[in-house]
Amino acid sequence: MINEKMYSLGSTRSKIRELFEYGKTLAQKIGSENVFDYTLGNPSVPCPEEVTKTIISEVQNPMIHGYTSAQGTIGARKAICDYNFKRYGFELNPDLTYLTCGAAAGLAITLRALISSPNDKVLTFAPFFPEYKVFAENAGGSLIYSKCDESTFDIDFLELEKTICSDVQAVIINSPNNPSGTVYGEETIIKLSKFLNDKQREYGHAIYLITDEPYREILFDGAVCPFIPKYYDNTVVCYSYSKALSIPGERIGYVSVSPNAENAQKLYLAIAGAGRSLGYVCAPALFQAVIEKCVDKVSDSTVYKDNRDVLVENLTKLGFTCVNPKGAFYIFMKSPMESAEEFSDIAKTFGILVVPSDSFGVKGFVRLATCVSPDLIKRSLPAFEKLAKELKMI
Amino acid sequence: MINEKMYSLGSTRSKIRELFEYGKTLAQKIGSENVFDYTLGNPSVPCPEEVTKTIISEVQNPMIHGYTSAQGTIGARKAICDYNFKRYGFELNPDLTYLTCGAAAGLAITLRALISSPNDKVLTFAPFFPEYKVFAENAGGSLIYSKCDESTFDIDFLELEKTICSDVQAVIINSPNNPSGTVYGEETIIKLSKFLNDKQREYGHAIYLITDEPYREILFDGAVCPFIPKYYDNTVVCYSYSKALSIPGERIGYVSVSPNAENAQKLYLAIAGAGRSLGYVCAPALFQAVIEKCVDKVSDSTVYKDNRDVLVENLTKLGFTCVNPKGAFYIFMKSPMESAEEFSDIAKTFGILVVPSDSFGVKGFVRLATCVSPDLIKRSLPAFEKLAKELKMI
Repeated sequence: MINEKMYSLGSTRSKIRELFEYGKTLAQKIGSENVFDYTLGNPSVPCPEEVTKTIISEVQNPMIHGYTSAQGTIGARKAICDYNFKRYGFELNPDLTYLTCGAAAGLAITLRALISSPNDKVLTFAPFFPEYKVFAENAGGSLIYSKCDESTFDIDFLELEKTICSDVQAVIINSPNNPSGTVYGEETIIKLSKFLNDKQREYGHAIYLITDEPYREILFDGAVCPFIPKYYDNTVVCYSYSKALSIPGERIGYVSVSPNAENAQKLYLAIAGAGRSLGYVCAPALFQAVIEKCVDKVSDSTVYKDNRDVLVENLTKLGFTCVNPKGAFYIFMKSPMESAEEFSDIAKTFGILVVPSDSFGVKGFVRLATCVSPDLIKRSLPAFEKLAKELKMI
Repeated sequence: MINEKMYSLGSTRSKIRELFEYGKTLAQKIGSENVFDYTLGNPSVPCPEEVTKTIISEVQNPMIHGYTSAQGTIGARKAICDYNFKRYGFELNPDLTYLTCGAAAGLAITLRALISSPNDKVLTFAPFFPEYKVFAENAGGSLIYSKCDESTFDIDFLELEKTICSDVQAVIINSPNNPSGTVYGEETIIKLSKFLNDKQREYGHAIYLITDEPYREILFDGAVCPFIPKYYDNTVVCYSYSKALSIPGERIGYVSVSPNAENAQKLYLAIAGAGRSLGYVCAPALFQAVIEKCVDKVSDSTVYKDNRDVLVENLTKLGFTCVNPKGAFYIFMKSPMESAEEFSDIAKTFGILVVPSDSFGVKGFVRLATCVSPDLIKRSLPAFEKLAKELKMI
């Protein structure tokens, strides 16, 4: 018997992938120069030169590719903790740090470690990365979400109070946010920390805060991304080098349990057990060595800011409303029609591919990934103008 | 609440890891030259030069590290199928082939795709890789096993008949076998195929045969490893390049559903869904490119044969009984005492680290990993002699 739930997960393409495939077909029909694909979050800038140099130097040792311990090499784990200390003044512990095959693996195993019963719930904030639901359900629990203030996509604490319940074992935040680009400031984090501490007392159990922060290094306009373990003890940092080093296909990241967390050592071992259970033997060895050497390097992301500026300015001129993103490489734009799906379909007829927000848990918006070439953006502006005319916005 | 089962998995070190860590402590005490560590299956030969050259050439393109599609690049999938066709004369289908983070990931997601109810069972043959049990249980089912003939560790079909039941959805074979080194010949495979076909008819449902074959390229004495999809339609090949290319830390392998399998396309999509569910986004991108270019390369494994020869000859002379392995890099030796655990403990006092067979589902044997330096073997022989004397074998 084939598992029907897995079959359904494998056969239902995500909206993003579906649009991406549509774009490839469309390009064959009308020419790729007439297709403006804003669907995929694949970094458009190269990895730092140091990454390439490190790889070339490390592979001179043909034994570099052996198994490492399940949690990763001590060299990489120490480098990660040293970097975070230098940058944020907070000491993570290498012995509570676990190298993973990217943030997706980190989230999947952390949730598996934190969910014990089918009643257990994971809370997040909409809009959110759709795979959170998949990982929470794989872990045997379920995902619930709290709506954000739609003008800023900051946390709406009144909504949060209505949504949270004593079954919540873990809360996921994603800042800078995919898809809204919102960065939670210090004030929000302090308020969230107080809120969760109160709830822990009320419910009589720990609520772990999982910070999914692959976009932490991509910030604009002087935005600052607070380091969450400084503000809330029961924090688990889930990081990925996908965006900072432009190496998303290499699957390298880490999970680090705050040394101040309740039962930190037990949770860490449960994360290791979950890694074993899901078939993660170790994170890719060569890229563990790369992280050790390049932990403080970042790809040049100025193009993401320039892209954002050009798009926000021009789309606003045409009458569209965008939440000006403070980080990451997405623009969350209000759909000028009630149905974002319908708007996305009309945009397609002008060669513009944008992702309707429904799968992110929010209605009435579309996501534009701005990790594209500046040239594509320039060429897409007349198409956006035609679209605005079609919708009688101008 | 921390998941107790995951905690237990993460805090109980496997016997292999436990001995390995003990060896490191012992080395500090009595000097590493006096410790003969036969515990770990980490290849001791370097990767082929072509692997290093391919990496250096591929990273010249700093965009090589982007996401690939979840099932892997079409280039790598085609190369895998072409290679298998050239080598075995059987056509696998690139569209039924899914690149994975090693064989462990491949097994974990294939079992997740095949198990639908807590009654579902996975059958394997003892001795077996202990993680099979972990993966079957993570998928929501359980593992049962059939004992082998202890003189050859070939399949015992009378035992198999007693063990199998209608809840069995999948059977895992591992040939060349870890830990016994047994290679199932064509006769065994034909007999197994007939047996399973009969059972499928009797039970009225498919029984998928999962072939976990990372040691397929490491064969001695003219042994031949039959390509299972040629003999049994409902086959899923789980391969890893860990041993063939000596790159176990890089986590690269594949799952390929035989085009002749019942519901092949549905099973493939369920495997993709399971990959998504467990947090596998794609297999490491750089190593997908390596596989595409180096699919037909193999590390020089003659040292494994030489090591086997020296060890089997000398251990036999001392009165130990070994099943002469026809492949892989392990020797399965009969414990001269009833308890393999106790024998392993006594061996430790002579600096010899060998893994008792209990965790492989068999009593009374120990496993010696022969992927060590010939020098270590030579230096260990006097220690084995002292051990034999201590046990009054000579």
